[in-house]
Amino acid sequence: MNILSIDHIGIAVRDLDKYLKLFGEDLGLEIHSLEQKDPYGGLRGVFARIGETDFEFLQDRAPDASGKVIDQRDIANWLEKRGEGIHHIALRVENIEEAMRDAKAKGLHVIDEKPRPGARGSKIAFLHPRSTGGILFHFVERGE
Amino acid sequence: MNILSIDHIGIAVRDLDKYLKLFGEDLGLEIHSLEQKDPYGGLRGVFARIGETDFEFLQDRAPDASGKVIDQRDIANWLEKRGEGIHHIALRVENIEEAMRDAKAKGLHVIDEKPRPGARGSKIAFLHPRSTGGILFHFVERGE
Repeated sequence: MNILSIDHIGIAVRDLDKYLKLFGEDLGLEIHSLEQKDPYGGLRGVFARIGETDFEFLQDRAPDASGKVIDQRDIANWLEKRGEGIHHIALRVENIEEAMRDAKAKGLHVIDEKPRPGARGSKIAFLHPRSTGGILFHFVERGE
Repeated sequence: MNILSIDHIGIAVRDLDKYLKLFGEDLGLEIHSLEQKDPYGGLRGVFARIGETDFEFLQDRAPDASGKVIDQRDIANWLEKRGEGIHHIALRVENIEEAMRDAKAKGLHVIDEKPRPGARGSKIAFLHPRSTGGILFHFVERGE
């Protein structure tokens, strides 16, 4: 498999405004996709960029493209168990089907049977943290 | 302040060989500085590169430049409390004194009074995770 970059780092947040102030005002990073109605499994995405990597802010309740608020049960569970902080690391690959096949051949536990739609027209597939040293990774093949 | 890139992501590990297999063999990343006797607060550094970012593996006991094994109490404490996984994110800046001054002016809690020596001739300064949304960051100004 050919891993190109760390596409993004997902941060589980309760208080999005606190993180926008931290990453935008305090650390001086560019915040983007705030107003763009960008589907992340149907949810609006908010990102802060550093070099070739974004931070992506994941909320337990977030508006979808139409503005309707949707519950994200997996993020709510994470926040209850671990609190706010780093949730996952997304590894950008050229070809997600090839990366999934290679990972399985190496004995890694690929959770998704097939790639699922991610933010910004991407395709994503999660690896189980039990097979990756306690770190939640997903592969991402960009849509653009 | 001008944050240039995510310099590296620190991973706290008990079993370094497991992570070298995962990042090197399974994910196919370049492992470097294994043999190079590189001081990280006096310790030998081990890194796996993706794009412009390294993963840095942090052990509770690791050899220094002379081969003598040194206890790392802060990493041991982290492992006891949280287990293996992501420990910190290092933000590469052009000028670390300027970044520390700017961060303090924004009300962030900079732990280090002065920059301290990091891996590969760098200078580093930690931010307290209570002021940065539960994420342990440090600034790094590269030495090369």
